[in-house]
Amino acid sequence: MLPENERTRHRRLRAQGRRERGELDAILAAGFVCHVGVVVDGAPMVVPTVYGCDGETLYFHGSVASRSLLAGPLGEVCVTVTHVDGLVLARSLFEHGVNYRSAMIYGTPRVLLDPAEKLEGLRVLSEHSAPGQWDYARRPNKKEMAATALLALSLEEASVKIRVGPPDDGDGPDAALGLWAGVLPLRTSWGELEADPALPAGIEPPEHLRKLEGR
Amino acid sequence: MLPENERTRHRRLRAQGRRERGELDAILAAGFVCHVGVVVDGAPMVVPTVYGCDGETLYFHGSVASRSLLAGPLGEVCVTVTHVDGLVLARSLFEHGVNYRSAMIYGTPRVLLDPAEKLEGLRVLSEHSAPGQWDYARRPNKKEMAATALLALSLEEASVKIRVGPPDDGDGPDAALGLWAGVLPLRTSWGELEADPALPAGIEPPEHLRKLEGR
Repeated sequence: MLPENERTRHRRLRAQGRRERGELDAILAAGFVCHVGVVVDGAPMVVPTVYGCDGETLYFHGSVASRSLLAGPLGEVCVTVTHVDGLVLARSLFEHGVNYRSAMIYGTPRVLLDPAEKLEGLRVLSEHSAPGQWDYARRPNKKEMAATALLALSLEEASVKIRVGPPDDGDGPDAALGLWAGVLPLRTSWGELEADPALPAGIEPPEHLRKLEGR
Repeated sequence: MLPENERTRHRRLRAQGRRERGELDAILAAGFVCHVGVVVDGAPMVVPTVYGCDGETLYFHGSVASRSLLAGPLGEVCVTVTHVDGLVLARSLFEHGVNYRSAMIYGTPRVLLDPAEKLEGLRVLSEHSAPGQWDYARRPNKKEMAATALLALSLEEASVKIRVGPPDDGDGPDAALGLWAGVLPLRTSWGELEADPALPAGIEPPEHLRKLEGR
């Protein structure tokens, strides 16, 4: 179960709140881009970035928080991962909505300084977003490692919201309006691999990338 | 051209920064879910929500900022809209990345109180996210209007970042590694309409929804 506090307690639309830890893991596993919220000079800033996670920790590049980092010690962040699954088309516009799965993770990230820990975090991030590439592509050298700031955020304080299924006004007075109602699903899938035009002829994509095509 | 200030000026990866107003409009037109960042008790909170826009103003439901609203006058927000277009698979892990289009809008939203203005804002939001439904579904009644808090955010202060194309290491020393490199595109499309199980037989989906299927 996910722990509950003043911040992660579900206030609105409580039926959409989930407390199972497995729901959090599933949402994080299903994506690779999150939105990181930081406070800069008292105002919010929301930046999209790639993430990876290993079940206990979420890793993302520190560069996204650069303004915040430059301004002083790294403060709290809120990392949100959202999957949009469809439009909920009800009889009334008031009941219109979106089917989605969303996770919000709160905390103060840690800057990884230990080279071994940092390398492992980069491996997790890389394998989460581009599985198979850690063993295929060239790994970061010393200069590249030094130019990379990696942040680690504990998954301890998290909140999950999910909406699934048809609209909620199927058994209310609006059902008598005789209007069509239902869901228009939104699908996300990988396309076909596009080779870099600079690639010499004869270099074929590796199997671990081929098997992602069309999925 | 988008105006530039200390916050919207591109610091990192300047090549990815765009200043054309048309780019902002195109990114907003291509989506209907944004991530709203607010500051609550000094800490950031990032909430996904539906938006609509009319070229000058972005509209979203005030409920997403409820904790912030309850805490006092509505403060600044950062609304970010991101489209993930593909994985950039380079020869080196350091050059791996994501093709994306992202817009960040900063400002203090206005709570719409005038009934006519609020109704028009709801129409814009509805037609942006579910085109055709404003004239098809039942419009909000007085009670529903009162239960809806609609916020309006000016598009005046905005920043756009876009990355397109193959990896950047095709002409560097890593090209000699003989590794495959390119892009794995990510596609998002509507599926087939799913009727509400509570719907009586014989009610067919309207044409404006049918034409979205598979697009």
